[in-house]
Amino acid sequence: MVTGMMHPMQGMHASPILTSAHKIAIAGLGLIGGSLARRLVEQGRYVVAWNHNDRPYQAATELGIHCVESLEALATGKPDVLVLATPLRTIPDMLKALAPVWHPSITLSDVGSVKGMVRQQVEAAGLGRYYVGAHPMAGNEHSGFAASESALLDDALWAVTFDGTTDYSRLLTVADMICKGSDNRLIALDDTTHDACAALISHMPHVVSTALSNQLVDSPDRNIALALSAGSWRDMTRVSLTDPGRTRAMVVEDATNVEILLRQMAVRLTAVADALHADDQTAVDSFFAAADPFRRFKAQERRDSPESGGDTVVGATGSIELHDDSWRDELLDSARRGEQITAFTTTHQASILTRAMS
Amino acid sequence: MVTGMMHPMQGMHASPILTSAHKIAIAGLGLIGGSLARRLVEQGRYVVAWNHNDRPYQAATELGIHCVESLEALATGKPDVLVLATPLRTIPDMLKALAPVWHPSITLSDVGSVKGMVRQQVEAAGLGRYYVGAHPMAGNEHSGFAASESALLDDALWAVTFDGTTDYSRLLTVADMICKGSDNRLIALDDTTHDACAALISHMPHVVSTALSNQLVDSPDRNIALALSAGSWRDMTRVSLTDPGRTRAMVVEDATNVEILLRQMAVRLTAVADALHADDQTAVDSFFAAADPFRRFKAQERRDSPESGGDTVVGATGSIELHDDSWRDELLDSARRGEQITAFTTTHQASILTRAMS
Repeated sequence: MVTGMMHPMQGMHASPILTSAHKIAIAGLGLIGGSLARRLVEQGRYVVAWNHNDRPYQAATELGIHCVESLEALATGKPDVLVLATPLRTIPDMLKALAPVWHPSITLSDVGSVKGMVRQQVEAAGLGRYYVGAHPMAGNEHSGFAASESALLDDALWAVTFDGTTDYSRLLTVADMICKGSDNRLIALDDTTHDACAALISHMPHVVSTALSNQLVDSPDRNIALALSAGSWRDMTRVSLTDPGRTRAMVVEDATNVEILLRQMAVRLTAVADALHADDQTAVDSFFAAADPFRRFKAQERRDSPESGGDTVVGATGSIELHDDSWRDELLDSARRGEQITAFTTTHQASILTRAMS
Repeated sequence: MVTGMMHPMQGMHASPILTSAHKIAIAGLGLIGGSLARRLVEQGRYVVAWNHNDRPYQAATELGIHCVESLEALATGKPDVLVLATPLRTIPDMLKALAPVWHPSITLSDVGSVKGMVRQQVEAAGLGRYYVGAHPMAGNEHSGFAASESALLDDALWAVTFDGTTDYSRLLTVADMICKGSDNRLIALDDTTHDACAALISHMPHVVSTALSNQLVDSPDRNIALALSAGSWRDMTRVSLTDPGRTRAMVVEDATNVEILLRQMAVRLTAVADALHADDQTAVDSFFAAADPFRRFKAQERRDSPESGGDTVVGATGSIELHDDSWRDELLDSARRGEQITAFTTTHQASILTRAMS
């Protein structure tokens, strides 16, 4: 190295330097891991992958994914981010294998649909300080690398999760993988809020759907009711038809949140029953009117959709500032306002898109 | 008439003569009335129609539907069946207008989605002895004659309803309109069973869907939950987005049944909450397994579907016998076994198709 030469950045008014995730290791080339790997390669990132069997390796290698022979090799290759993309039940064993070969420069992430439990497992393995949770809102009924495709993550939103010990620069690294590496959006929030919200819009409704199916099965007139059933019944019971073992696991993993929400739903249904019993028109009217903010949101969403001639980008754009001592609250408040981060423009500023109920 | 001539049927071994519905009057050329009128004309029936305004008359006339200037003219034309196909709330006024000009040869029917309430109104108008209820399982989000089409009733199942006073020959007349006149299938049952089943597979689930949407709206994290929501949430809340005034009316019209079912659902949801709280794996497993008969039915339905290379006619074929003193129980039991009537082959025998949960 020749001394005395000017560093290329010297003399420039440099923007705050953003951490980036150039080299990304993915453990598990299934539907999500495979789709993410394909997408990152397309965006020019260096992707290293391991799978519990080498069946997808030939196809993956042809796409430019660098496949390795062992899980440990993912860590010893010192990627910027190592993403666990294997089923939730395998995570403890994965962490046990990775912990002895971990390098502090690596940020650990995952794609699991529950976040509090994964963090506990990460902490139990002694890797808590390296961890930033992630959960892409994507998937379908298929599985395996053959079913994976870059388009699965088109327009996807990710939840990125932190706790009081999370390293902000590691969160920026994971954000870089998501926003620039995967051309996706994110919201950042604490595990507790994530898991409570996932219970509200997915885990609890799965129980409700199954309860509806059970109500039918238990009726002596079940074949008559089935004969009379139409679109509303089909829609409301569809998720009860999916693998009950998987649904059961999902519900049990988020049991406390699901329990609270089921009790609240029972109270709501009983209140409507009481109002019908008392012929209380005002209470019945209020019940049906209460969903209006959601109806307005969905109506606006339909008007804004490309199919309706609206913009492809739905929602108002803007930016938020983040501060070293208050970024957790700032990110959570932003998510509560319905803002989704499209990119970090500096280490302390992010561009956003707002999609909120009014 | 020349006496002494042999009647054409004399000397033949005549099949029992089936009552048929050659001339059918339809009050209301909306989505259902219009679709039924088109279909009956296509099958060669003589269709007379009236609408509260004459906007659809030109198009209807071009299709071969005979439009008349007044509701009363439908009755004075002495059709075999007069079908009320106007909104439920208008039925009392329609009956009041028709009662003074009614002729005993006319069978009264309707297409309403609740049956007990309509029968009460029919009885209040003094037309109970002429009435056989009907409810086609068909519809979409549109309305009006312009949206009506014969195909709306393709492969449709109708519920035909009776009570202890129903005239069996009138039931056969309505069955002829449905099976041969409209190329559809039917199940026949009492009003109480119909309305309880409709509450189970439609009215109560609409309340549950709205309660889910309200649960979201009431959450301080509603925008976060909405951002995380996917297909399961969209499916389960879709019906809560439809016109809340119409849903409210449907629920209130069937209030007693809906009330009972909502309380049963509240008990089911609370039981799951209790099982999760107690970490009672057996109870949680049982809850998810209980929907298996419905899952098996739907899996079989998919295997049998034309898309899967199955038969276009799903279900086993057969026939049932009906007797003068026990046809009500025989029809109800048949419906409970999952049998759907495809045609009356004689006055006391019907061909059936079975679609049942095992």
